Amino acid sequence: MKKEIRILGIDDMPFSFGDRNTDIVAVVMRGGTYLEGVMKTTIEVDGLDSTDKIIEMIENSRHKRQLRIIMIDGIALGGFNVFDGEKIWKETGLPVITITRNKPDMRKIKETLKKHFNDWEKRWEIVSKKETKEIRLKYPVYVKHFGIGEEEAKSIIKLSIIRGAIPEPIRVAHLIATGIKKGESRGRC
Amino acid sequence: MKKEIRILGIDDMPFSFGDRNTDIVAVVMRGGTYLEGVMKTTIEVDGLDSTDKIIEMIENSRHKRQLRIIMIDGIALGGFNVFDGEKIWKETGLPVITITRNKPDMRKIKETLKKHFNDWEKRWEIVSKKETKEIRLKYPVYVKHFGIGEEEAKSIIKLSIIRGAIPEPIRVAHLIATGIKKGESRGRC
Repeated sequence: MKKEIRILGIDDMPFSFGDRNTDIVAVVMRGGTYLEGVMKTTIEVDGLDSTDKIIEMIENSRHKRQLRIIMIDGIALGGFNVFDGEKIWKETGLPVITITRNKPDMRKIKETLKKHFNDWEKRWEIVSKKETKEIRLKYPVYVKHFGIGEEEAKSIIKLSIIRGAIPEPIRVAHLIATGIKKGESRGRC
Repeated sequence: MKKEIRILGIDDMPFSFGDRNTDIVAVVMRGGTYLEGVMKTTIEVDGLDSTDKIIEMIENSRHKRQLRIIMIDGIALGGFNVFDGEKIWKETGLPVITITRNKPDMRKIKETLKKHFNDWEKRWEIVSKKETKEIRLKYPVYVKHFGIGEEEAKSIIKLSIIRGAIPEPIRVAHLIATGIKKGESRGRC
């Protein structure tokens, strides 16, 4: 694994009840730690456009050719706008790692989807495509990986952590997303 | 100079002709290189509220007590919304360094102020408070410093540069400001 590998980290901005759209923030980090670029795109709250919007943002970026991998905070963005990691990988050619600090409760997610969405089966199919795996470094994190093996995913996560449990590209995307939306960044990923 | 010193870096978002307001972005960096926080506030394009808005943003921040110094890109934000480095220093207790890659053409700035602003004398008084000094590191930069000596300013700038001429807190604030406003970050500070 090259230490200078370019990673794209993605997180969403917080939104309020009644908001139709929300923004997602992506950062390009070299070696997982040196910020080279910032991108933004807009998705629908509880929509189903996050997959295509992420692909479009990457395809239109001047960083595209340097990127080697994508890390996304969580398994959905903008509420239940679930994204398809496999499709993002296949269309961009970049492996995708989703990462959370807590283990996603898939049973609860399924129940919530069933309760609130007529198209819950479609969303459930997307969100349940891969099993969540626990990766133990200094702290445990929970990941899904598409287009990359578990060992390689683990070594990329490891090289991109400076402090704590969360890789820099996701930590920085989260700070920007909350800081720009709320006036000051807050909270854990 | 402690290597872990917390620096606040400030830059403005690009704006379009006719925009009444624009946002400014501030980042808190530890050791000048590790991102700890992101803030945002809004100022008037060509207004005169940047000084007070910067002071207010800092006073309201949970990072306030950790901050040791402020770096600002340029000598005005949001067009000719000139800020008073001396007032920011005196009211927050934090020294201020303004920094540009090119030497500001003060004669041209005075001419422009005279041409476009009835209150040009007030703006000129603020913007011309201190002499610009050239600081030569690997690349030259042009600075004004308030509440701190030239040698100390130089050593803080030096410790906060990773690559190129521009300290990380200003470089990162610039990437965020342009990326969030334009969809993708661009250009030099």
